[in-house]
Amino acid sequence: MKQTISKPARERLIQLARLLEHIENDSRQFITSSEIQNLTGWSSYTIRRDISHLKTECSTKAGYDIVLLKNAIGAELGITEGVKKCCIVGLGKLGSALIDFDFGKSYKIVAGFDSSVNRTEILTAPFPLYPTGQMQNVIKQEGIELAILAVPGKVAQDVATKLAGFGIKGIVNYTSAILSVGEDAIVENISLIDALQKIASLHAKN
Amino acid sequence: MKQTISKPARERLIQLARLLEHIENDSRQFITSSEIQNLTGWSSYTIRRDISHLKTECSTKAGYDIVLLKNAIGAELGITEGVKKCCIVGLGKLGSALIDFDFGKSYKIVAGFDSSVNRTEILTAPFPLYPTGQMQNVIKQEGIELAILAVPGKVAQDVATKLAGFGIKGIVNYTSAILSVGEDAIVENISLIDALQKIASLHAKN
Repeated sequence: MKQTISKPARERLIQLARLLEHIENDSRQFITSSEIQNLTGWSSYTIRRDISHLKTECSTKAGYDIVLLKNAIGAELGITEGVKKCCIVGLGKLGSALIDFDFGKSYKIVAGFDSSVNRTEILTAPFPLYPTGQMQNVIKQEGIELAILAVPGKVAQDVATKLAGFGIKGIVNYTSAILSVGEDAIVENISLIDALQKIASLHAKN
Repeated sequence: MKQTISKPARERLIQLARLLEHIENDSRQFITSSEIQNLTGWSSYTIRRDISHLKTECSTKAGYDIVLLKNAIGAELGITEGVKKCCIVGLGKLGSALIDFDFGKSYKIVAGFDSSVNRTEILTAPFPLYPTGQMQNVIKQEGIELAILAVPGKVAQDVATKLAGFGIKGIVNYTSAILSVGEDAIVENISLIDALQKIASLHAKN
């Protein structure tokens, strides 16, 4: 059943869960599909179809129960189970800009790495910073599962291969390199250029 | 015909075009689907199917002709037509980390904006920086089409609505806000949390 949710629907549900988390704090109980449409721009048909993939009875006459819906998305996509430990690899301008980023409840940065000892000594962070040589030990000792990769593009594949070898299960790739890491790790690309290209290609289509 | 390319296939083709651009510089003429498989991790079946969407005769016994394939992707997705002007909105840690980013041949940053005049005066950039109040004028005068949004999450929707009103056609959203900007502008989300969630949900599925 889980296999039948398409990638775009999965991405919308992940965003919807984040939206519901914001709204939950406003102490409201329900939200309708047209309210979600106003907040996201997705059609209410799309929203209802996405939610129909979930195993939940969160739909009432007053709309969807916000907490039930959020929990159902988490359960279906398996994204609520405990805190996952992450590290930042590469502490240049971009990597160090992520040091103070708010990672929410589900993810915790427990280490940063850079090939320059100078860099790891100069920067301050709420978690320890190490030279790259200590990656293997720290990842194993801390049980780090996810890595945020912000090294220069030309060394990205080498570092990614090492990270996968050290047991990292997922890499968020901020570099311009296209990474191949075998089947044990998952790569999610965060590419500014690709985002610009997607916008350009969608405009060209219209 | 263009409508039939699925979103995941479109994203792979965009990445493939970027990969081919790198390889083109190595003065090779051909690449096979299994070489692409090794470089990307996508199955060669998927690669051949994606490429079959293109109107091109780039396939030979020696593999795909790299330049023809790259141009065919550009033509199909409409991403090769001239240089598009962009601006960075919000020059905090993340926005200012993007100032020196290599935007390649198709995109050019021509302006940066921040609500703090202090910030726009302290930072140095290869393009002019303006206080937010000048956004409308600069966007119109320069003919800026795309905006990279890196403002604090709580003002993101307001700023996005303004940008769409000023004629911006596409927004790359680095904020944690989920934006709704009507049908005239396209939003591409670059969310670190969403990327982590996608990895977690894909691991949960297996």
